[in-house]
Amino acid sequence: MHETKQENVTIDDNNNGTHNLDDGDVINLDHGDPMMFYPYWKNIDNECSVTIKASDMISYLANPKEPDFIYQMPEFIDAVRRMHRVVGNAVTDGRYIIGGTGSSQLFIAAIRALAFTVKESNTCNNKHIPVVCAEPYYSFYKEAMEQERSELYKWQGDANTFKEESGPYIEVVTSPNNPDGRSRKPVVNREEGLLIYDLAYYWPHYIPITSPADYDVMLFTLSKTTGHAGTRIGWAVVKDQEIAKKMKKQILLMSIGSCHEGQLRATKLFHFVADRYEHDAYYEHEKPPMKPNLFDVEGLFDYGHRTLAQRWEKLRAAVQHTGTINLPNFSPGFCNFFGKLTHPTPAFAWLECKTGEDAEILTQKTKDPSKEWLTVWFRCLRKIY
Amino acid sequence: MHETKQENVTIDDNNNGTHNLDDGDVINLDHGDPMMFYPYWKNIDNECSVTIKASDMISYLANPKEPDFIYQMPEFIDAVRRMHRVVGNAVTDGRYIIGGTGSSQLFIAAIRALAFTVKESNTCNNKHIPVVCAEPYYSFYKEAMEQERSELYKWQGDANTFKEESGPYIEVVTSPNNPDGRSRKPVVNREEGLLIYDLAYYWPHYIPITSPADYDVMLFTLSKTTGHAGTRIGWAVVKDQEIAKKMKKQILLMSIGSCHEGQLRATKLFHFVADRYEHDAYYEHEKPPMKPNLFDVEGLFDYGHRTLAQRWEKLRAAVQHTGTINLPNFSPGFCNFFGKLTHPTPAFAWLECKTGEDAEILTQKTKDPSKEWLTVWFRCLRKIY
Repeated sequence: MHETKQENVTIDDNNNGTHNLDDGDVINLDHGDPMMFYPYWKNIDNECSVTIKASDMISYLANPKEPDFIYQMPEFIDAVRRMHRVVGNAVTDGRYIIGGTGSSQLFIAAIRALAFTVKESNTCNNKHIPVVCAEPYYSFYKEAMEQERSELYKWQGDANTFKEESGPYIEVVTSPNNPDGRSRKPVVNREEGLLIYDLAYYWPHYIPITSPADYDVMLFTLSKTTGHAGTRIGWAVVKDQEIAKKMKKQILLMSIGSCHEGQLRATKLFHFVADRYEHDAYYEHEKPPMKPNLFDVEGLFDYGHRTLAQRWEKLRAAVQHTGTINLPNFSPGFCNFFGKLTHPTPAFAWLECKTGEDAEILTQKTKDPSKEWLTVWFRCLRKIY
Repeated sequence: MHETKQENVTIDDNNNGTHNLDDGDVINLDHGDPMMFYPYWKNIDNECSVTIKASDMISYLANPKEPDFIYQMPEFIDAVRRMHRVVGNAVTDGRYIIGGTGSSQLFIAAIRALAFTVKESNTCNNKHIPVVCAEPYYSFYKEAMEQERSELYKWQGDANTFKEESGPYIEVVTSPNNPDGRSRKPVVNREEGLLIYDLAYYWPHYIPITSPADYDVMLFTLSKTTGHAGTRIGWAVVKDQEIAKKMKKQILLMSIGSCHEGQLRATKLFHFVADRYEHDAYYEHEKPPMKPNLFDVEGLFDYGHRTLAQRWEKLRAAVQHTGTINLPNFSPGFCNFFGKLTHPTPAFAWLECKTGEDAEILTQKTKDPSKEWLTVWFRCLRKIY
């Protein structure tokens, strides 16, 4: 939890059964969990299932042809490229795609790969490389970096207050941002900076897709794309061959890659999602066969955006009723994917108390019956990761 | 690859299709890959398959009841305990079971947890904690430790030559050992030592099970138990609550746990294996229903031990024919699991040239047609991980 007077709440979670309220009426303040996607997938449960036989996935080698990348299924890489082509949210032609156990593992792998690269060209400098991100930032970054206790790099917090005027640094740019949903650009902007773009939420559910992202190191995750957080599958899109090579080595030494069953499942889910949009101008490849009874299934991004828009509408109505909380406003933008103007509908809502009170502390003292909705929101609060 | 005059070869791998020889006639010198288990599982492919529907495994929460352990399926933990009860190779009652993305991830998590524990009680000491293991050791340890570039600990190589007479250290005890198959005990034996037992190969396939292991931190992996290396599932068995808590935190921050699909699959495989031996004295719990057509399926450990014994027999015959190589000899022991005297049949064979030559270099110059078997062995050699 950040030391601010604001609070973020998750609106992509569903009622987990502890409250007698409709789905979407309860906001989880404990953690983000993409159960919003559950009804979508439940509807086509058997159409997009995978069956894994006893003798499947025994070998370490998912890709025997690439000695430094043996753990990665080529089918998964192909499906990732297809998703980005269909959606138009990232350039992948000529880029390296590197899978990992969630984007959390890839975040560490990317930091290490960049830090090793810096150290190779600055052999005399034993100083830690600073790692920064503009506040408010995803609290995982700080926790994960601090646990690393690395000799090479060190978490230095808010990029806005980073004062070093020379020397290498790594800046994490999360766009749209977790927790406040804002589009972001780098803050420090010095030549010696190395950037990691965490684009987990750069999908049409959450924000208009205005152009394909084309940065040096970009991170994505299945949990924010199709919602399958338990599968622990993420991927990086990387421009430079040497950085890609270093990241692959890290993933190999961290866990000899990621679970092949998870890669298989992500591949199946991606093709299902992309099939719904294959008429899209971004997808110029041969059409795969689609079962006739699936033509009527709503596209995942339509479902996601529609569902989040409904939740934001409810949330804004509730917040207006209380009069004590500010919610952020977002300007609409032309989404190339939907081909129309859309409003951002982030997975998190960043609350601000109009009184200047700490919104987190408010959770302890909301006894006023007229604010029962707040009690419902806040009673399961422990921490946010 | 270690700087010795010996060489290890994998005999649990199968012919990968590049040679026109029977399975088991080609020895892979590049890497270990447990394809030996493939025919066993192929035989019961549909009897032990898993089907995962589109809406399964969406949530991060595999275990919502334990806030510090949300990523771990309780069914997986139960299946691990059952396996150890059935086999009798480790004490798990009253112990913490912690899953991870292969035992490679758990190895790092264990090193960190022990290092943080040492640092908590030695706040004034900024020295790196030495990490050692008796040679010959699994080359992954060194590579993974060096990539960590930790402020807390440092790989110091061979435990036999470790000279520090005071201060904390971590010793890795791999038993049976990768690569030489020997049973091992700690080498340094000082009070301030913290031990990690890598018991990946302590299963009846490979070595007689003489008693349930009962150490502070023990590591196991699916790849050496059922052979499913691609699934990337490992687990630690830990005595101390605080160490267990620290390891869980590390796994959470490294990757928010391991793939739920992999955990589900491991659970299914474990129960299938344990069902074959449920008449065994070690398993005192209620019998699960077993399909009548599966009563005749050979138990996995019987299959594994039988297959490895046949391969060792072939290997010893071939080695005797050349006269230039020594293979290790292993004394038989009474295996409590099989209820009889058995010979160790390690997954690796540790070769020694009688001439004193470096067995690795031999791979470059074996042109003698009478030594064609050696050429076959060695021609795919690149490195061993």
